[in-house]
Amino acid sequence: MEKRYIMSPGPTPVPPEILLTMAQPIIHHRGPQFKSILSEVREGLKYVFQTKNEVLIFASSGTGAMEGAVTNTLSPGDKALVVRGGKFGERWTEICMAYGIKVDNIDIEWGRSIDPDQIQKRLKKDPGIRAVFTQAHETSTGVKYPIMEIGDIIHKHKNTIIIVDAISALGAFDIPVDTWHLDIVIGGSQKALMLPPGLSFVSVSHKAWKFVERSQLPKYYFDFLKERRAISKNQGAYTSPVSLIMGLKEALNMIKKEGIEAIFNHHKRMSAATKAAVNAMGLKLYSKESPSEALTAIEAPEGIDGQKIVSIMREKYGITVAGGQGQAKGKIFRISHMGYINTFDIIATISALELTLKELGYVLELGSGVKAAEEVLYHKQ
Amino acid sequence: MEKRYIMSPGPTPVPPEILLTMAQPIIHHRGPQFKSILSEVREGLKYVFQTKNEVLIFASSGTGAMEGAVTNTLSPGDKALVVRGGKFGERWTEICMAYGIKVDNIDIEWGRSIDPDQIQKRLKKDPGIRAVFTQAHETSTGVKYPIMEIGDIIHKHKNTIIIVDAISALGAFDIPVDTWHLDIVIGGSQKALMLPPGLSFVSVSHKAWKFVERSQLPKYYFDFLKERRAISKNQGAYTSPVSLIMGLKEALNMIKKEGIEAIFNHHKRMSAATKAAVNAMGLKLYSKESPSEALTAIEAPEGIDGQKIVSIMREKYGITVAGGQGQAKGKIFRISHMGYINTFDIIATISALELTLKELGYVLELGSGVKAAEEVLYHKQ
Repeated sequence: MEKRYIMSPGPTPVPPEILLTMAQPIIHHRGPQFKSILSEVREGLKYVFQTKNEVLIFASSGTGAMEGAVTNTLSPGDKALVVRGGKFGERWTEICMAYGIKVDNIDIEWGRSIDPDQIQKRLKKDPGIRAVFTQAHETSTGVKYPIMEIGDIIHKHKNTIIIVDAISALGAFDIPVDTWHLDIVIGGSQKALMLPPGLSFVSVSHKAWKFVERSQLPKYYFDFLKERRAISKNQGAYTSPVSLIMGLKEALNMIKKEGIEAIFNHHKRMSAATKAAVNAMGLKLYSKESPSEALTAIEAPEGIDGQKIVSIMREKYGITVAGGQGQAKGKIFRISHMGYINTFDIIATISALELTLKELGYVLELGSGVKAAEEVLYHKQ
Repeated sequence: MEKRYIMSPGPTPVPPEILLTMAQPIIHHRGPQFKSILSEVREGLKYVFQTKNEVLIFASSGTGAMEGAVTNTLSPGDKALVVRGGKFGERWTEICMAYGIKVDNIDIEWGRSIDPDQIQKRLKKDPGIRAVFTQAHETSTGVKYPIMEIGDIIHKHKNTIIIVDAISALGAFDIPVDTWHLDIVIGGSQKALMLPPGLSFVSVSHKAWKFVERSQLPKYYFDFLKERRAISKNQGAYTSPVSLIMGLKEALNMIKKEGIEAIFNHHKRMSAATKAAVNAMGLKLYSKESPSEALTAIEAPEGIDGQKIVSIMREKYGITVAGGQGQAKGKIFRISHMGYINTFDIIATISALELTLKELGYVLELGSGVKAAEEVLYHKQ
């Protein structure tokens, strides 16, 4: 009978309307009914990505699409620059290395952002860099990167493209793909798009398609050219995950109806309320600069294990937040604001956090976090 | 208000119980609740695959797992033998070639099966062949291959493994993975496992793991070693498609409860009834030998377009059967018996086929197909 809250930065809660849409009878992936759904989904994805270009859809987790972004744009021996400031930056490096790409890493202290000048300098030093890989924000640290500025820099280099992992950012904060000249942007279903995990999305710019056409790395399942041909006929190259795509159509309609600007504002509000609560409770953000509006990464207080906070919140209060990953494991915990998270999900989470921390011996006034959150919510409508 | 029947060889109908299981609230992919589900799923998959070895799970269509089977077992320049008797045999060749594998094809006329001696001879001629790729049955032609015999041959070659695409066969007819010494066997969610598309499965034998450990082809998302480490801890390497896996648990429980032998018999019965109807209606099977029990592939009568049969059945009667693929397009149509298909789904399909063929000018006595099917169903309990 326990009511459960999933407040992790993916997977996120799925609205019941979408869950029930996906419980409809299966339809054939090459039939007219599915083609009509996919045609609507294509337009909806362009709206969310803020692009005029086609957005490809894969049946995979986001990592699959990240691999596709590497194998479809580069060739053996190519050079890449990776912004590495957390677990997902590390993933870019790993994927590139698995395919024999020469990787130059810009290592950032976890919890810090990047100065776009660093990228400018590296590109100047080595104009042979074919692609710059980054996250829109680093989900493992809660830090947002200056993608507009990085996009601007790379736009001026005609032999270099920018590839952005926006899996947990897309639909949570503003990433206008075309305006910012972002060549490849990757999204995932299980974040702000309010769906179960299982779908990934890739937008490809005109400039990036030229890279794709010349790319010599091996690929098959994540072949962008093959998927572009298929989706132009409102199909996938292989069997589309029809249930998830029926849910996607519903999710995109909900997003359109609300308006993407209103949704970004909602995320800002949830984020501001949470961060105010963190501050009022005497806790510290793990993100030392540019904290993301899509999640809040918080340091566990001195002497308290972050994983312990996560497990008490889950076991005793039914609220699933995420722990730290990699080098941050045990040191932090993370609260998501992505997608179908409302005011009182945030209030419940802060309340549970207060109760949990008190139980663990941390000195705080009960209600202080909630009060601070409410102040923000009241004044920032 | 039209009642619809999906009778295509994937995706197949999903029982309402499973659809509603998947409509449950999202849970976290690293939490204890999900780990407990995955632990049960692992046992269930071993039951369906009839193996003691671990079965890996990927968020992808079956093609992704096929690619993984190539990239995880072979190294650049390795030689492979492909049984190519339809669209899915062609896919093995395409994947191998995308990764620089030297492919020797055994080309079979579409609609025919393979003599295992051909494989024996090729292996004798070229003992350097590292892997033999085949289908359990070719879904595009409805022909079943002698997998037991092929498995026996390859078992005797210690430097060669057999890799079987059983995506649309697994759970429909008997493929005892361990008994038949099948090194890698691939399954998919959207066939006899009664789930939506979006999951693929791979069993890996002890012998095949040695190939995996030595393999030098590049891979990342479909990395078998990484998934083996993850699943041993009841997790996926990346974000697991939690909804589909909740559904999988339910599907595997239903299969266990029914018993895999009973399920194979059910498929045989559905298949025999359909094939008797085809015969009674004066139609010809496209499968000239070893017709599969998982589907029935039927030639369109002289002068009638197979695609026309498919579209009338769908538009006028709400019954989706599949057309032909590749060189069989327009020439054939295919009726699935996979998974959640019962007696009266088959009767409805045969009835709609009679009405459709009559409309298209084919001379037949209405009811003759259904009568023949009922005769089989009555006598073959």
